[in-house]
Amino acid sequence: MDEVLLVNEVGPRDGLQNQKVLVARSDKLRLVRALVDAGVRSIEATSFVSPKAVPQMADADELFPLLPNAAQVDYSALVPNLRGLERARAAGVREVAVVLSATETMNQRNINMSLAQATAVCAETLQGAVGAGMRTKAYVAVAFECPFEGPVDPAIVLALVEQMVRAGAREVVIADTIGAADPRAVAKLMGRCAREWGADRLSAHFHDTRGFALANAWAAMEAGIRKFDSSLGGMGGCPFAPGAAGNLATEDLVLMATQCGFKTGIDLGLLRVAIALAEDLTHRKLGGRSAAWLDKQAQLQPVAGAV
Amino acid sequence: MDEVLLVNEVGPRDGLQNQKVLVARSDKLRLVRALVDAGVRSIEATSFVSPKAVPQMADADELFPLLPNAAQVDYSALVPNLRGLERARAAGVREVAVVLSATETMNQRNINMSLAQATAVCAETLQGAVGAGMRTKAYVAVAFECPFEGPVDPAIVLALVEQMVRAGAREVVIADTIGAADPRAVAKLMGRCAREWGADRLSAHFHDTRGFALANAWAAMEAGIRKFDSSLGGMGGCPFAPGAAGNLATEDLVLMATQCGFKTGIDLGLLRVAIALAEDLTHRKLGGRSAAWLDKQAQLQPVAGAV
Repeated sequence: MDEVLLVNEVGPRDGLQNQKVLVARSDKLRLVRALVDAGVRSIEATSFVSPKAVPQMADADELFPLLPNAAQVDYSALVPNLRGLERARAAGVREVAVVLSATETMNQRNINMSLAQATAVCAETLQGAVGAGMRTKAYVAVAFECPFEGPVDPAIVLALVEQMVRAGAREVVIADTIGAADPRAVAKLMGRCAREWGADRLSAHFHDTRGFALANAWAAMEAGIRKFDSSLGGMGGCPFAPGAAGNLATEDLVLMATQCGFKTGIDLGLLRVAIALAEDLTHRKLGGRSAAWLDKQAQLQPVAGAV
Repeated sequence: MDEVLLVNEVGPRDGLQNQKVLVARSDKLRLVRALVDAGVRSIEATSFVSPKAVPQMADADELFPLLPNAAQVDYSALVPNLRGLERARAAGVREVAVVLSATETMNQRNINMSLAQATAVCAETLQGAVGAGMRTKAYVAVAFECPFEGPVDPAIVLALVEQMVRAGAREVVIADTIGAADPRAVAKLMGRCAREWGADRLSAHFHDTRGFALANAWAAMEAGIRKFDSSLGGMGGCPFAPGAAGNLATEDLVLMATQCGFKTGIDLGLLRVAIALAEDLTHRKLGGRSAAWLDKQAQLQPVAGAV
């Protein structure tokens, strides 16, 4: 088999953004270093949003240029608009992502814009990024269910994906922001998107609110998706979306994908070291669905570098 | 959609068998009653094995005739051999299941027989059950990986399924006894079995050791399987198989299957009442991967009968 599965680690952004504690820049860099040491090669490092709205990411401008092994790792950053894009460009970002929620209410609550306004802002930001020679990604958030409006019509998601692709998004991430998707819905929506734009252009972002994240990931893999967001220890969850519990845990994704025959390049023993560090930094117990099993395996066979 | 998905609840057998505490017969009956009240219509109630080997099931002969709503519920029991079959018949059992492990070592460690001996004993027990007019089921245990021998060749599983079908098994349960299967392996093995004998003859039994149980269940559903074993609160795990953590939790299966459009007939609110009772009886915290989410939903919308 030996197919490659790309894990885009979102812990430093989606994870840390939702912690009550503010993690110091030097500690963020230690965490990213630990992820890189574990073999992670794609990391959503920060976001260039308003420091008032998201104080956890206020240090984006200073953090980004300090990220380790920048030649070997694809670091991306979220940008909300042209102003954020300009900050990202100045900080040396080479790949940016915009976020578009699929419903009126989610856009209103999250960024105080209508869906049409948000779509236009995302489109102009993508165009600006393309013009600046950056790689581009667009998230379609609450792509399955909105906490305010309920189930989302797949036709709306497909239309938004098309608009983001036309605006210059090299990759579109279908995001189940609140962890409400089920594998049948994933198979259907991701299958349709993959047929329309090719699985290569797509990525999936799941949350584990109901415990379905791995089942949803498998359904997406079956639809041909080979790029996934995940967060070490499951850290994260959207602060603006009620009920959005932790992200799909990176260790769960890596464990399952590896056993299914995919290559991720990530060492689970060293990933556990990064998770232990994240627990220290956030003063929280972290860990995905495989945590008990991984703990037991680590006791049986101590891994190099494990703490 | 509205396809039916059959949930075979194994908590009263696979679950209670693995508890340190001995649960009184009257309490077992309360638990079964709570399951029936929640809409469960297929229950593995007990096993007619040696009381010395499995003291938790020593009361099978007395328990079985007392099971509630026997006309509406399909109660089954495990029988290890003709002697167990005779006990089951005397107790009024109408459906029996035999268990055949797929490897030499697992059979040796579990029942002190070779694979060939175990196959012969299962076959004669099935034939006896058919002769007695009973419905029959055969488990192929450690069908993906054996804790002693490692990965199991699907060809061996297929051959054993065939032998069990020929011996009279109306249904064959492919059992991932130690929770080592991944969804790709499930898709492959269950797909082959379904093509060979028809999905109707098959059922799946998963454990959640690595957190893959729901992903595996979805892979099996995609292969056409519509019958699943599960245990309320995830209670259970084979005492003879190192590393066999809890069963696929009934509430996880019901929640995901229902959201995928299947009908199980099971009320999650009333199932939670049964889980709370099981926690009382076993002095253990139970609950599957959806527990936190179900707890939160219950707080938002109290369900009739919830404790």
